[in-house]
Amino acid sequence: MAEIKKVVLAYSGGLDTSIILKWLGDTYGCEVVTFTADIGQGEELDPARKKALSLGIKEENIFIRDLREEFVRDFVFPMFRANAIYEGEYLLGTSIARPLIAKHLIDIAATTKADAISHGATGKGNDQVRFEIGAYALNPNIKVIAPWREWDLNSREKLLAYAEKHGIDIAKKPGKSPYSMDANLLHISYEGLVLEDPAARPQDDMWRWSLSPQDAPNEVTTIEIEYKNGDPVALNGKALKPHEMLAALNELGAKNGIGRLDIVENRYVGMKSRGCYETPGGTIMLKAHRAIESITLDREAVHLKDELMPRYAKLIYNGYWYSPERLMLQAAINESQKYANGKVRLELYKGNVTVIGRESANDSLFNAAYSTFEEDSVYDQKDANGFIKLNALRFIIGGKAGRKY
Amino acid sequence: MAEIKKVVLAYSGGLDTSIILKWLGDTYGCEVVTFTADIGQGEELDPARKKALSLGIKEENIFIRDLREEFVRDFVFPMFRANAIYEGEYLLGTSIARPLIAKHLIDIAATTKADAISHGATGKGNDQVRFEIGAYALNPNIKVIAPWREWDLNSREKLLAYAEKHGIDIAKKPGKSPYSMDANLLHISYEGLVLEDPAARPQDDMWRWSLSPQDAPNEVTTIEIEYKNGDPVALNGKALKPHEMLAALNELGAKNGIGRLDIVENRYVGMKSRGCYETPGGTIMLKAHRAIESITLDREAVHLKDELMPRYAKLIYNGYWYSPERLMLQAAINESQKYANGKVRLELYKGNVTVIGRESANDSLFNAAYSTFEEDSVYDQKDANGFIKLNALRFIIGGKAGRKY
Amino acid sequence: MAEIKKVVLAYSGGLDTSIILKWLGDTYGCEVVTFTADIGQGEELDPARKKALSLGIKEENIFIRDLREEFVRDFVFPMFRANAIYEGEYLLGTSIARPLIAKHLIDIAATTKADAISHGATGKGNDQVRFEIGAYALNPNIKVIAPWREWDLNSREKLLAYAEKHGIDIAKKPGKSPYSMDANLLHISYEGLVLEDPAARPQDDMWRWSLSPQDAPNEVTTIEIEYKNGDPVALNGKALKPHEMLAALNELGAKNGIGRLDIVENRYVGMKSRGCYETPGGTIMLKAHRAIESITLDREAVHLKDELMPRYAKLIYNGYWYSPERLMLQAAINESQKYANGKVRLELYKGNVTVIGRESANDSLFNAAYSTFEEDSVYDQKDANGFIKLNALRFIIGGKAGRKY
Amino acid sequence: MAEIKKVVLAYSGGLDTSIILKWLGDTYGCEVVTFTADIGQGEELDPARKKALSLGIKEENIFIRDLREEFVRDFVFPMFRANAIYEGEYLLGTSIARPLIAKHLIDIAATTKADAISHGATGKGNDQVRFEIGAYALNPNIKVIAPWREWDLNSREKLLAYAEKHGIDIAKKPGKSPYSMDANLLHISYEGLVLEDPAARPQDDMWRWSLSPQDAPNEVTTIEIEYKNGDPVALNGKALKPHEMLAALNELGAKNGIGRLDIVENRYVGMKSRGCYETPGGTIMLKAHRAIESITLDREAVHLKDELMPRYAKLIYNGYWYSPERLMLQAAINESQKYANGKVRLELYKGNVTVIGRESANDSLFNAAYSTFEEDSVYDQKDANGFIKLNALRFIIGGKAGRKY
Repeated sequence: MAEIKKVVLAYSGGLDTSIILKWLGDTYGCEVVTFTADIGQGEELDPARKKALSLGIKEENIFIRDLREEFVRDFVFPMFRANAIYEGEYLLGTSIARPLIAKHLIDIAATTKADAISHGATGKGNDQVRFEIGAYALNPNIKVIAPWREWDLNSREKLLAYAEKHGIDIAKKPGKSPYSMDANLLHISYEGLVLEDPAARPQDDMWRWSLSPQDAPNEVTTIEIEYKNGDPVALNGKALKPHEMLAALNELGAKNGIGRLDIVENRYVGMKSRGCYETPGGTIMLKAHRAIESITLDREAVHLKDELMPRYAKLIYNGYWYSPERLMLQAAINESQKYANGKVRLELYKGNVTVIGRESANDSLFNAAYSTFEEDSVYDQKDANGFIKLNALRFIIGGKAGRKY
Repeated sequence: MAEIKKVVLAYSGGLDTSIILKWLGDTYGCEVVTFTADIGQGEELDPARKKALSLGIKEENIFIRDLREEFVRDFVFPMFRANAIYEGEYLLGTSIARPLIAKHLIDIAATTKADAISHGATGKGNDQVRFEIGAYALNPNIKVIAPWREWDLNSREKLLAYAEKHGIDIAKKPGKSPYSMDANLLHISYEGLVLEDPAARPQDDMWRWSLSPQDAPNEVTTIEIEYKNGDPVALNGKALKPHEMLAALNELGAKNGIGRLDIVENRYVGMKSRGCYETPGGTIMLKAHRAIESITLDREAVHLKDELMPRYAKLIYNGYWYSPERLMLQAAINESQKYANGKVRLELYKGNVTVIGRESANDSLFNAAYSTFEEDSVYDQKDANGFIKLNALRFIIGGKAGRKY
Repeated sequence: MAEIKKVVLAYSGGLDTSIILKWLGDTYGCEVVTFTADIGQGEELDPARKKALSLGIKEENIFIRDLREEFVRDFVFPMFRANAIYEGEYLLGTSIARPLIAKHLIDIAATTKADAISHGATGKGNDQVRFEIGAYALNPNIKVIAPWREWDLNSREKLLAYAEKHGIDIAKKPGKSPYSMDANLLHISYEGLVLEDPAARPQDDMWRWSLSPQDAPNEVTTIEIEYKNGDPVALNGKALKPHEMLAALNELGAKNGIGRLDIVENRYVGMKSRGCYETPGGTIMLKAHRAIESITLDREAVHLKDELMPRYAKLIYNGYWYSPERLMLQAAINESQKYANGKVRLELYKGNVTVIGRESANDSLFNAAYSTFEEDSVYDQKDANGFIKLNALRFIIGGKAGRKY
Repeated sequence: MAEIKKVVLAYSGGLDTSIILKWLGDTYGCEVVTFTADIGQGEELDPARKKALSLGIKEENIFIRDLREEFVRDFVFPMFRANAIYEGEYLLGTSIARPLIAKHLIDIAATTKADAISHGATGKGNDQVRFEIGAYALNPNIKVIAPWREWDLNSREKLLAYAEKHGIDIAKKPGKSPYSMDANLLHISYEGLVLEDPAARPQDDMWRWSLSPQDAPNEVTTIEIEYKNGDPVALNGKALKPHEMLAALNELGAKNGIGRLDIVENRYVGMKSRGCYETPGGTIMLKAHRAIESITLDREAVHLKDELMPRYAKLIYNGYWYSPERLMLQAAINESQKYANGKVRLELYKGNVTVIGRESANDSLFNAAYSTFEEDSVYDQKDANGFIKLNALRFIIGGKAGRKY
């Protein structure tokens, strides 16, 4: 077992990470530093501080940071510039938060001269990979303690027994979901229980954030989002900071039954797993961003982005945010966004996000004159003859040589 | 001007292609053969026969074919195996029908010993390219007459004057849409008029096929689709031929407000254009196919398909169905579908298509035992240590060498 | 430690695998089956049989197979259809042999009812990954013993001590290379010693197979290779089986100083390593295959192959020969080769492979009439006007909208 | 015919562009401005000035510019960062010079208030596309006159007759090649004559620049190139400007028989054509750049570059240097080069370029300690167990579910 002097733990204040907190001290005999972040998960952070204190953590070893703006500005928005979707469906809500946490774990380790970090991700999931690859990329000398892969508390009973023995309160919070959940400003995820059968649907009360389409209002909500360089900057004419924007879109989406997803996905560690997600604001942003791009981006820029996107999304899903290849793709994507400016109007209604208008005062490449039936100044219809003929030439030559297509 | 003996015209029976019919004879002094196909556009074909006869076409030169099954079986279904979407939105409803028409134009030209084909696509659109590249690929010696690029009937007035002069009935069919439309079993498209302003939304009465989400029933419709080798083969337990399947899904989708789309897209000939589409059955199929793939395809097969898809979709959009590169991609895609067998259950409700269950009796790769918290037989959580460590090794080495990520 | 009844060992007859042979029996108390393959490494196999017998292996547990034809026909040739090169340089000589060995290890395990396989690849290299991923893909229940990752014989001294203690002859074969080598019909590789400094060059006597360009003959050797469906089938007019072809090209290449390579490559397990390679026949085949493709393949088929190739090469390098994604890519590549028929003439001279002629009686797409200055029947130069104009249209529209490129 | 006031002609001073010069004035009645560039083609420019004057061009309408440094710095070097090769062979020597010429044509048009540009590229080649797409991208309002597509001087006889009639000297320059050639600092190309038969080899005296391998010295030449951010900056310890570097490498390469190429390639306009090329310095640079990348670039950066390269090369070949998609790819490529610093030593010998050493004082990611047999600090061989197991997990699960690979 590695020798550890001081470890920074990603600490939520919940039962599992409280057990880890104790276990780290007991097992490694090391000082424990706790890090609790507000990334919009919708929980008070003060209880986490009190809990840490009650478990014997020193005041100066308790770090609580509000990362909501940084999260959306530096992680969520750059990712949405790429229209990133994993396996055709998943908007990467959990994946994109992990490198941010890794960054602050490493930062606090530097501040506190800790030699290790620790987290509560299990040994079968993607999050352990994302935390740890991120951590190693930011500090190659860091040590990582992953309790779920080390200890023998591999059943609920053993965990609770350990907690009781160490004086950790195991009373369930009222209203706590029985599902395994992860939440941040971009989404909530659910795993486990009935979801382990992909043929079964979850019960309605699993969903915590959004109304169902059925329960959503019968009236349409119309909104307008303004984009600058590919990022949303104003909602209904009001400038908003990144995290304010996402929070506002979440509220609008959740109210209108938007952004629920139920999929089977492929984990990086090798197996399939079933997950349900709520991404109300993200679902709106994806549609709106596509719309602003549709009038402001060059065709081949759009197509190149589309071809690079699955790889970009996979990098983020697999935990390679801090990597040369993600930076290369981001450089290409950012280059494409300099003209992605303008406004998109959308209707929200019972699960539907419908674009009803897009405009760009200075950067539109759309000009009806070029596409209509009538004559115009830039396009001579006879040019299509040569265009088609030369594009077909390889088939004409091939056909004359006997090729069948 | 090329010398033409006999030309096969893609003939709808409508005003425009009737004018072309006349114009071809007058301009080229050639015999005209008409070809009218039922690809599910929802119009009687008998009037087209009568109209052709009335315009002087000989009985034996009138070809009417029901291509609905061939269309869905040999074009739509292979394309849906790829989850093909153009520019993140468009399901390629018009694009995929063009190579089928080109095939039969060339086939009839061979039958009738015609030396040319002709079509009614305009000089600014994609369809001319799709028709003609397809035609040249299938017969490199064919001549193509594209009247819209040749004649001087470049305004509605001149067209009508020409029609009147030649005794072509110009009475508008009652209920005919003022928009420029294309319809087949996969979709209806709309262009022109108010759509030429991307900031403006179309009026509700533009949509001909589907109910709006608002007007759709308040009750959920639940369906089950069975897949075999990536193609849907049974609906709610009843085996259906390809075109029956698509027709049935269209009806279900249209009734439930599913499949409307309003986008600005990039044409192959170089400009942007606004289009609205109704693809009710296709929208359901895309979602259902993704779902059956999610439990039956290997992860990297999914990812490779996702990376190849934009290029495949672009090929079809641009008119390269009959090309070595499309055949290569199709070979790869088909190879991936041999295990895509099973059933998907979906809920249809006011524009939403929601997967509520997927199962595969023999080909599921999903096994809850591998993804849960608990121990299992194939996965040792400690294996994640090495997996993460070696995947991070290049960053650890890089970090020790001074790299910043 | 896993319980093992019987293990199939990939056995070369050399010192290292002889030690493994002993160690397996001692450590696991299991029966050992040896498998020795002739894949063209240029060594007698009979000594391996004798050595195995002398180390106590039962006659019926000794498997020796001549896999040369299978190796070239089913592995090397399919790979060369893709023009596969890893990191711009490496022709994958070691990588492509590993799945073949894995296949026979699994096959012999089935025959002998063994429950495990073992190999002599070290814990830092790519080969362990290739062997084991291949083995698991072919038999998910197989157990794998990788002695280099298990034992504590982690220095040359300990190994030799172990050998002596167990009566294994440690006398070095006369003329044996001090480098770590791998050889088969496609190549020889060298690692270690002076190569561990990428700034240093190997001594001339490292190379075992080929003459240096300096020592190669001063006369040019001219050869002609005939291709069928992308595979070489005849040399200088004489039909050859796959392994005969490669052997003959190796001799020609080696004599003419062709196919030496000295690179730093990136291993799948995360670090860089220096390797030197001799691939005389492969180097000729790569050049010749490109040449036959240049006159018989459609342009876009070539370009699609080129874009897919790095991914295909990486799959093979990383050990994913038996994978859905390799099969998908192979399907696409094979589809492209049906017209790759014809003859290529080449000059070999002091390290240079120069194409001096290519022809295809039935499948050439080259026709000088279409490319020359003079008029021809299929190409109207005026068509270029429209081709250029429409390809430039997006820039013209962009420029008029103020875009700078 | 378009009305033209003033046209800027890309003028070499040779017979063809002199005829065009006259023809432009006669046909369009417009003022002609000549632009002659030194891009290292190895010809005196003064005769071009005299010739223009003699043909009636006004002194102030004659522009002669030395673009050698700009050519290499802003075009050749950025392209070599990508290791760009078209169709596996061609180093894009002609392609990369065209956008530079287009840029200066447009610049001079702005300076002289000309409304058109003209060039001497034929109607069947790639160069017309590259010139014109470049020109339109830089000035969407420019008019382009492509005489070869317009006039009826479509045979050598008519051309000469026209020249004689207009007093243009048709005496052939002594020693002028009978092949159609293009030359600049990066390469010379040859087309036409015997090359129109891909089965025939060119005569030795076609090659103008390099010695053949046979005629090259019997002694090895050793050189060292220093790289900074992916560009070569010093040769044998001496700092050189970009064009000086390329000139020096050309001399070294040409002397040592390096960089000849004989291929059949696929033109953008649709047919195949045969070309021979000499790219001595470029061939050295490609090898050297790969070598410096091999020790300084992260593995996945290399692989991403390799996958993007064919597309990047195709863009340049097809004339899309000034395009959003090229800029996006360039941004990704440039991002990858920030650590590509160090030195590469190479041997040049009779057509061979052999890397014999590479080093990087501050940016090497190579560390022999990580790849050798012996223990090291960052790599625990047991980690490979988990790495392999989890990478194989999808096959193990698949195999247990009955999949065959």
